[in-house]
Amino acid sequence: MKFAVIGTGDVGRAIAEKLASEGHEVRSASRTAGGGRYPHAEAAAWAEVIVNATKGDASVDALRLAGRTNLAGKVLVDVANPLDFSKGMPPTLFVKDDDSLGERIQREFPEARVVKTLNTMASRLMVAPGLVKGQHSVFMSGNDKDAKRLVEDLLRAWGWKDIVDLGDITTARGTEMLMPLWIRLWAAFGNTDFNFHIAR
Amino acid sequence: MKFAVIGTGDVGRAIAEKLASEGHEVRSASRTAGGGRYPHAEAAAWAEVIVNATKGDASVDALRLAGRTNLAGKVLVDVANPLDFSKGMPPTLFVKDDDSLGERIQREFPEARVVKTLNTMASRLMVAPGLVKGQHSVFMSGNDKDAKRLVEDLLRAWGWKDIVDLGDITTARGTEMLMPLWIRLWAAFGNTDFNFHIAR
Repeated sequence: MKFAVIGTGDVGRAIAEKLASEGHEVRSASRTAGGGRYPHAEAAAWAEVIVNATKGDASVDALRLAGRTNLAGKVLVDVANPLDFSKGMPPTLFVKDDDSLGERIQREFPEARVVKTLNTMASRLMVAPGLVKGQHSVFMSGNDKDAKRLVEDLLRAWGWKDIVDLGDITTARGTEMLMPLWIRLWAAFGNTDFNFHIAR
Repeated sequence: MKFAVIGTGDVGRAIAEKLASEGHEVRSASRTAGGGRYPHAEAAAWAEVIVNATKGDASVDALRLAGRTNLAGKVLVDVANPLDFSKGMPPTLFVKDDDSLGERIQREFPEARVVKTLNTMASRLMVAPGLVKGQHSVFMSGNDKDAKRLVEDLLRAWGWKDIVDLGDITTARGTEMLMPLWIRLWAAFGNTDFNFHIAR
């Protein structure tokens, strides 16, 4: 399949490299061109699936650059978190409880089929869950069942076994609000080699 | 040991019964007297350890009734969550990110040794973690190391094996903010027989 990965930070690079290694066609988009990077709109227009791997506070603007019509009807995998670093460390969330970044993106691009996932772990675990031993979970939130099925297939190919479909995109509030605990676990353990598992 | 359990809902009853079954002396406190219940101040003055098992929005008032001097120097186990049901279901949190209920209680009763714990699971799992199979975790947040050691011993006696000390009481923000995901997992699974595990 053809994937546009918006964002070329740790998360975007990890996902783009994994997809390419699986034989998918990948175009990475970044504001700074060059190095094989494509303009947002060009990558999005060409792609069948778009991955939002930008920083949360830049996500809506980056997707506007990608272009509403270029996202229409397509699966938009949102892995970003609404982290606000403006008040110092640890970061807070700029949206919680009554909204989520996933919902904002879905509202802004109503014809895109947004699936929130992979936003609850370190970037290298996203594409290599085996780096943490034992069972652990990845969550999905989205309004479109076919889009979630496509994402689930991707996740299984990457080694994910426990994939928890939480429901519609409003359930992204739950996973985005995991970040404050994730940050404190990082501080307590001194590393990011951990993940949440829902024992049941 | 002598325990005062403030609150006689599901959580308070589960904890009081478990403590009594272990041979501890327990006095349960409730605003409605009778049925072997004690006034808050009487239970707190007598006890060595106080458990806050009230609803989050009633916790500070209930502990004021227990009395600042009656809490001074004692371990105060806070298992409540700052749930706000006033905006309908699912509930939101009335404090997040920049504060937590655990911190509010510690600020209000600076001489108490507050340990936030057990607020991330269904009440019957608190005292019987074996009801959910496999490994799963309980968190502790608090400023006083000796108080956390006492709580850890209690938790081990109840069957907890993976006890994660997150750090000081500000880390309660992380566990209280788990509630929105917990609520959505409940909706997705249709039951509360699950718990978080930190795989690592």
